[in-house]
Amino acid sequence: MQSPIVDFLQSLHDELKGVRDGEVATYIPELAKADPDWFGICLVTASGQVYEVGDSEIPFTIQSISKPFVYGLALEDNGLADVLVKVGVEPTGDAFNSISLEPDTGRPLNPMINAGAIATAGLIPGNVLTSRQRRILQGFSAFAGRELSLDETVYRSESETGHRNRAIGHMLRNFDILTSDPDPTVELYFQQCSVSVTCRDLGVMAATLANRGVNPLTGKQAIRGEYVANMLSVMSSCGMYDWAGEWIYKVGMPAKSGVAGGIIAVLPGQLGIGVFSPPLDSHGNSIRGIGVCEALSQRLDLHLFNRRGTRDGAVRLYFDGSRVNSHRVRSIAETALLKEHGHRIGALQLQGNLVFATTETAVHEVLKRSDDLDFLVLDFGHVLSINDPAARLLFELTQGLVAEGKTVVCTHSDRVPLLGRVFRTKLGAAAAVETFLTFEDNDPALEFCEDLLLERLGFAHSENESAAMADFELLAGFDEAEITRFENLLGTRHFSAGEGIIEAGAEADELFLLAKGRVSVFVGTDGSRRRLATFSSGMVFGEMALFDRSPRSATIIADSEVECRILSLEALDQLGAEQPGIKIKLLENLGRGLSRKLRKANVELGVFE
Amino acid sequence: MQSPIVDFLQSLHDELKGVRDGEVATYIPELAKADPDWFGICLVTASGQVYEVGDSEIPFTIQSISKPFVYGLALEDNGLADVLVKVGVEPTGDAFNSISLEPDTGRPLNPMINAGAIATAGLIPGNVLTSRQRRILQGFSAFAGRELSLDETVYRSESETGHRNRAIGHMLRNFDILTSDPDPTVELYFQQCSVSVTCRDLGVMAATLANRGVNPLTGKQAIRGEYVANMLSVMSSCGMYDWAGEWIYKVGMPAKSGVAGGIIAVLPGQLGIGVFSPPLDSHGNSIRGIGVCEALSQRLDLHLFNRRGTRDGAVRLYFDGSRVNSHRVRSIAETALLKEHGHRIGALQLQGNLVFATTETAVHEVLKRSDDLDFLVLDFGHVLSINDPAARLLFELTQGLVAEGKTVVCTHSDRVPLLGRVFRTKLGAAAAVETFLTFEDNDPALEFCEDLLLERLGFAHSENESAAMADFELLAGFDEAEITRFENLLGTRHFSAGEGIIEAGAEADELFLLAKGRVSVFVGTDGSRRRLATFSSGMVFGEMALFDRSPRSATIIADSEVECRILSLEALDQLGAEQPGIKIKLLENLGRGLSRKLRKANVELGVFE
Repeated sequence: MQSPIVDFLQSLHDELKGVRDGEVATYIPELAKADPDWFGICLVTASGQVYEVGDSEIPFTIQSISKPFVYGLALEDNGLADVLVKVGVEPTGDAFNSISLEPDTGRPLNPMINAGAIATAGLIPGNVLTSRQRRILQGFSAFAGRELSLDETVYRSESETGHRNRAIGHMLRNFDILTSDPDPTVELYFQQCSVSVTCRDLGVMAATLANRGVNPLTGKQAIRGEYVANMLSVMSSCGMYDWAGEWIYKVGMPAKSGVAGGIIAVLPGQLGIGVFSPPLDSHGNSIRGIGVCEALSQRLDLHLFNRRGTRDGAVRLYFDGSRVNSHRVRSIAETALLKEHGHRIGALQLQGNLVFATTETAVHEVLKRSDDLDFLVLDFGHVLSINDPAARLLFELTQGLVAEGKTVVCTHSDRVPLLGRVFRTKLGAAAAVETFLTFEDNDPALEFCEDLLLERLGFAHSENESAAMADFELLAGFDEAEITRFENLLGTRHFSAGEGIIEAGAEADELFLLAKGRVSVFVGTDGSRRRLATFSSGMVFGEMALFDRSPRSATIIADSEVECRILSLEALDQLGAEQPGIKIKLLENLGRGLSRKLRKANVELGVFE
Repeated sequence: MQSPIVDFLQSLHDELKGVRDGEVATYIPELAKADPDWFGICLVTASGQVYEVGDSEIPFTIQSISKPFVYGLALEDNGLADVLVKVGVEPTGDAFNSISLEPDTGRPLNPMINAGAIATAGLIPGNVLTSRQRRILQGFSAFAGRELSLDETVYRSESETGHRNRAIGHMLRNFDILTSDPDPTVELYFQQCSVSVTCRDLGVMAATLANRGVNPLTGKQAIRGEYVANMLSVMSSCGMYDWAGEWIYKVGMPAKSGVAGGIIAVLPGQLGIGVFSPPLDSHGNSIRGIGVCEALSQRLDLHLFNRRGTRDGAVRLYFDGSRVNSHRVRSIAETALLKEHGHRIGALQLQGNLVFATTETAVHEVLKRSDDLDFLVLDFGHVLSINDPAARLLFELTQGLVAEGKTVVCTHSDRVPLLGRVFRTKLGAAAAVETFLTFEDNDPALEFCEDLLLERLGFAHSENESAAMADFELLAGFDEAEITRFENLLGTRHFSAGEGIIEAGAEADELFLLAKGRVSVFVGTDGSRRRLATFSSGMVFGEMALFDRSPRSATIIADSEVECRILSLEALDQLGAEQPGIKIKLLENLGRGLSRKLRKANVELGVFE
């Protein structure tokens, strides 16, 4: 099935291809050769989906669309302050080729007019023109995600007819905006305008700006993220020449057009648009290009300022330890305590891009409940990114909670490396370790909190506790004689820490009574191994496969020195034959254990579903 | 614990309160009375959290910050086209009180300069000045979330000294931009400037713009959402007078300042900022106000164009019917079929604000898998809002899938009323019913898909099937004599559809064998009633409480005519005493059933956790 987005773009293309207004640019002979029917549309999402229709692969020259990109490279190569000294950021009501310089300093008003673009090209470093040209081509190629090259014919044509731009160059030299021979810089400017691109390239370049400088197709950083807002700002205020106010009003996306008929438009965080259609209006903007941008903005509701609130923001789910617990299997007494006091453990699943406004919702959610909490698990497993303000906010939240004697635990913190850096920067590496507690996953984090909570409630734990026969829930209701009779049926097996007890796939013919130590149940292989349960002394395991008579579905490994008492299927059958009353009690107790686990699982499913 | 956001604002306040630059406005005597030390900051999120520090409750006059709001009211009262005839949207490099009119039409260049604002005030309808004033006060009050009023002293002072604005009024009358006596409109303009607000009010008004016109504190629509982008656009291009380029470059939020020292700034979808500090710079903007906005933008990374990609966008979770199923309990054979073929049922949980770019990720996710799917469940349970393009995209997706013979089912569609409207508009009400299939919840939606899939696989269902004793999984491995012996212990009870079978909280002393019909298990009361399970003939229920000897935890109701065979606890004990071999088989079969359910629950938890 074809994507409805392609269908939509195709119908828009059909609708606008009949527009016959405007003239192909003729100021250089090469541009005049363009076919006025050429028409391509390409929409690329910030996640890298490309939707293209029409003449999206025909090459043409980038022309003025090069200006914001060279401006970005100049920022990267010189830093913000040095660039602002040479070029301003104020719009001018004048045409694109006017020589709008500040009267006293000679500084061009902005980098989107020719004077500003030539001043910007002057900031691209390099000893010779070829190395400066290479910097520009490589920079543009990173944005496009493929190797771009010059259209030499157009470049020569531009160079042969570019007297006005040479005049601007000398004027800039006069004001010391350019500090050496202006001619090579004007040549570089002609070259940047003559880079050959397709409509698809423009879409990808725009999407790279939408994705904070990371090309969504290659995953590579085309420009340092901090400069993207600067590039988009000058596009927004000056990108559509003397038409900026109406453009932002009607279309509401930073954009830039070129006289070869290209337009890019960017919806930050969401998508980029490339359009190509050579006939231009009197401002020098592609007529069908403007039509496409207006239609897309309106029909897809892309206006930058037409946004709904974040509401739930970063909060994916909140639950507490009275309903959801770690996979550590607890005794009946512990389970009852967790049900009663588990609300002191809160777990907040965060999601999406953590910026100030989304993270605020999470902080608010925690503070609302903080009186009730002793432990907080912050789960970053569904987080896509975090910025510095969000990381600092979560740091401050944690510090505040810790100061009140609460414990904060982070899981999946590998997804938010910035957070650890903030802790280490603010506290020093040593102290950071003490308050920035991290676990790979929620399961061990919850277990950690539960253990501490149970300890406070008077339940201390040791990995190597032993259980006497009478301690087993399995033998509840057994009298002494029955216990002795039962115990006589059992074998004994010892395991050292890390040793396998049950292998997934093996035949199930034994029930395990854990007399000493701790064991854990895992599914999956090493890379994606997931803990299903941890049992401690006094508990039984292996009963499900025994009921099913199906092969073992999980692997069980000793966490510590382990002693197991083993009831074989054979012995169980023997028990049924000789002492059916004992077997009945045994099965009833096993059934009770399974019922308890199933109830617990159903409660947890109710939370997550 | 105090929010770290308040701490942050307080430290910013401390940092900037020592700034001594600038002068309090003196052009009318009342403004000159302001204390230059007054300084308040208020940040309000689009979800309605208010953070305020300093002098956030001191009243002052709104002055030019009234301009975008009156512009919004004029749009609402006249429509876009009629407003654009009277006032343009292009920035001017001139000062705020210049008379920047288009030479031929006399149309003011934009509504943020005085001429444009007076032209805009002229568009506020009403027979008399008081009714027009009421419209403005009510409009502003809706934005602020409390009843605002005029500062009469400032108004009189403005009126007495406002000769330049009266001149502008007459000039506008000359060009027929104002079509009647200009004086009342100029008075109205003085009145709109003299509305008394606090810094907190400004924060809430800004947040209302950030929340697409809905006041996040009152939940009321202060302005029709479609006009918010227009208001923010003129603020963005013309809001900070002749400083718009640098403002968008440095701060990156649409903003508006007033000469009494107020500034609002808006980050659409996220938050609004109000600042108050009377000393002004030479542009007429509050100096500390600008400092606050610059610091907030930089330190909280609020620049509009500094956004990361949406990546996962609207996709919360995808799962398929081989791992997660409805709460309809299936027979062993059906369970095996669903495990094998359940991947033909896909379920996509959507989340957040569905706009084009976020919804695209969901559409892409579905198309990627559509060859594998016969059924698609679209779950809107975590969706906050949907706009028209997103609804149309999902409509087109559904139509495409249905055309390929697939079934699409929507759940929680009450959260996205627009989606149903798109179906009905495009297809007509009758046809819409056929393709826009909706269920309240995922559970019945999954059951619907499973039933259809099982039917295709040769398993038809009827609510009133009967099961013979030998059909019960509970009696697996029983010989005929054992079945007879067992059956003799059973009572029989009939229920009509809708009748209660088990009441939550009741004593558990019976096991139910469902001989005919269907029953469902529910927890919660009517409003939040949730189905835990549905059983059909041949299955047993009530066994968990029997093992636990705990009261019933859920309510069970007959879905149809039901016949149950009942095993009382007493009879079970009798069986244990007289025929322990039968009881053992019974317990083993119950254990097997519980094991199967627990395994299933663990698989589902693995998907959702």
